[in-house]
Amino acid sequence: MKIPPRLYIALLHHPVYDRRGQVVTTAVTNLDIHDISRSSKTYGAERFYIVTPLEQQKALVRKILRHWKEGPGALYNPSRREAFGLAEVKGSLDEVIADIFERDGCRARIVVTGARFSAGVIGFEELRRHMASDGGAYLLLFGTGSGLAGEVTGRADFILEPLGNSGGYNHLSVRSAVAVVLDRLRHGR
Amino acid sequence: MKIPPRLYIALLHHPVYDRRGQVVTTAVTNLDIHDISRSSKTYGAERFYIVTPLEQQKALVRKILRHWKEGPGALYNPSRREAFGLAEVKGSLDEVIADIFERDGCRARIVVTGARFSAGVIGFEELRRHMASDGGAYLLLFGTGSGLAGEVTGRADFILEPLGNSGGYNHLSVRSAVAVVLDRLRHGR
Repeated sequence: MKIPPRLYIALLHHPVYDRRGQVVTTAVTNLDIHDISRSSKTYGAERFYIVTPLEQQKALVRKILRHWKEGPGALYNPSRREAFGLAEVKGSLDEVIADIFERDGCRARIVVTGARFSAGVIGFEELRRHMASDGGAYLLLFGTGSGLAGEVTGRADFILEPLGNSGGYNHLSVRSAVAVVLDRLRHGR
Repeated sequence: MKIPPRLYIALLHHPVYDRRGQVVTTAVTNLDIHDISRSSKTYGAERFYIVTPLEQQKALVRKILRHWKEGPGALYNPSRREAFGLAEVKGSLDEVIADIFERDGCRARIVVTGARFSAGVIGFEELRRHMASDGGAYLLLFGTGSGLAGEVTGRADFILEPLGNSGGYNHLSVRSAVAVVLDRLRHGR
């Protein structure tokens, strides 16, 4: 087993809520792939999974990744190529978990993130301590749309405390949230 | 003088370097406006300035802001409206400083951010202590392209230590960097 604990990131486009609380599949956003790949690389995450069940969306993501990993983008911007090396598309959370098990040898502990949680959450310091003492693989789940659906949050080993000021305005983009969560887990607070 | 110290954010599209070290004007990116407005609001910044000298770009930004502040976007997404209430376009750093002086009554201390600095930088904890003890207005400058040009960094009261791991991969998007810097200044680390 490798030390330190390994962080994996997944961005889910399904199942997530829309603003009315319906479970939907959101469209992939190009800049999410760029920004979260760069944050994953900067903070030393092992892998970044873009999760969508839609075949056309999966093909689109693969095309974008190919452009920056092997196509003209790789020559134009080598640091982007390095970041995109961590990114890949998967059809479901189960596929992500299976892939991590195959790569890592550990069943990943599932850490759910979101802005709406309050009861039963784990703080950043507590999660850091857990990671430092137990080691293993940790999969951070981020939702698009209006957040991860209940069928995902129900599978959490940990629900992470929300960022921002509780009760106040708290509407970071998912791109910003990933960067801040990684910064807190890697640099403490 | 108001307490606590006030944070202002400016995103500069000129003068910044391109990847060959030439001073250029970059194009405004729509998602920068969204993400940085949302981060500014979440972390309690006073104002977010989008800075470009190009009249057509200024008109474009004003059109985007109008859509979310007064147009269809304001009804569709009230929280976005709230965030965009902090955002406005300016033609230069001098215009930003003048605007802050007019609103705030203080000359803003200029805090330059960037990934390439090493000598003479101030750490996050030190800047936090400075802000807590001295109060006043602080203007955080973020560059697009390959970073703020020398004529801007030369005006810094403080140069903030880079994010990420020194020497390693360190290529956060400016959207991510703004969120992490605000999180560190507001919540410590």
